[in-house]
Amino acid sequence: MRTMKVTSKERTQLIDITYEVQKIVDESRTENGLLILYVPHTTAAVTINEGADPNVQKDIEKTLGRLIPKDNNYSHIEGNSDAHIKASLLGASVNILIKEGRLLLGTWQSIFFYEGDGPRTRKVYVEIIPTRGL
Amino acid sequence: MRTMKVTSKERTQLIDITYEVQKIVDESRTENGLLILYVPHTTAAVTINEGADPNVQKDIEKTLGRLIPKDNNYSHIEGNSDAHIKASLLGASVNILIKEGRLLLGTWQSIFFYEGDGPRTRKVYVEIIPTRGL
Amino acid sequence: MRTMKVTSKERTQLIDITYEVQKIVDESRTENGLLILYVPHTTAAVTINEGADPNVQKDIEKTLGRLIPKDNNYSHIEGNSDAHIKASLLGASVNILIKEGRLLLGTWQSIFFYEGDGPRTRKVYVEIIPTRGL
Repeated sequence: MRTMKVTSKERTQLIDITYEVQKIVDESRTENGLLILYVPHTTAAVTINEGADPNVQKDIEKTLGRLIPKDNNYSHIEGNSDAHIKASLLGASVNILIKEGRLLLGTWQSIFFYEGDGPRTRKVYVEIIPTRGL
Repeated sequence: MRTMKVTSKERTQLIDITYEVQKIVDESRTENGLLILYVPHTTAAVTINEGADPNVQKDIEKTLGRLIPKDNNYSHIEGNSDAHIKASLLGASVNILIKEGRLLLGTWQSIFFYEGDGPRTRKVYVEIIPTRGL
Repeated sequence: MRTMKVTSKERTQLIDITYEVQKIVDESRTENGLLILYVPHTTAAVTINEGADPNVQKDIEKTLGRLIPKDNNYSHIEGNSDAHIKASLLGASVNILIKEGRLLLGTWQSIFFYEGDGPRTRKVYVEIIPTRGL
């Protein structure tokens, strides 16, 4: 198990962590396997989406903010209920397959850490379970 | 593979099952591993979020209910279309890592069963895949 | 690791792939294990929900379309921002347990490929990690 650190600069932000995750795969020398990313926070999440056009990230963030506004008569008084709700909708974990030493992502896929209540320094756990391959 | 039972008392409800899941880890004597929770229902789900302030749970439920109301000219005539939709958004499964015999949750994280069409008695499957650890 | 092909006929569509996934389990001769489905696309997803009444699928699609309309002043100019956002909400991956050679789905559960920007031919990766069983 490995721990990555991710530092956000905005209150809400999608941060591309694909390169850092591939580095962990490289260091593990795993040929084939299942990689699990896990976010141990309740106002952040992890998601896979397009990394090529930053406008996709902008549209995701803006739409989440429209559906789940920062202030909306919430009961929790810390001012981050929106981030908690988004965390449950996006999810705390993703699975990614590893094939021949590489993350088996689609052509347009990147791995994003979702910051919902930044700026902060956060942790992401990475576990790899080797498989037999083809 | 183990089966947990969860009993809900309301139509929609988040139920903290962290203690019961840790008990299954204890009984399995797993030192390090991946735990998979799986909900075999289509109007319930599982999610990880803050367990300390019950108002967070209230905000999650209320916001889901605002976005996806119980009645909204649905085609499915059983009166629980909202619960089916929420089940797909929250998800039927979560991954949690186990380290030195403990669920590797964040400081504020609890595991919640989401009931969308209760009250009922439900099942949650628990599978553990041991890993080599650090 | 196996690759399935899925062909959609509409722009947005839920396609039941349970039968094809079970066939892969059969061919693998896995008795007990964890099956991971992974969608390597950023405008599609995978989700588990009721397969018996097609109206449930209709309600899921219609509600997603109401919350996240196709056109809504998005920044990404390819006309499929809605599909990217839905992909992150539904998720690129699901876990399913295998017991005695069968997918351990609930009575009403089917596995659905979610097409958000079709019609197209898509890929789904399937990985199986055997476990020791009971």
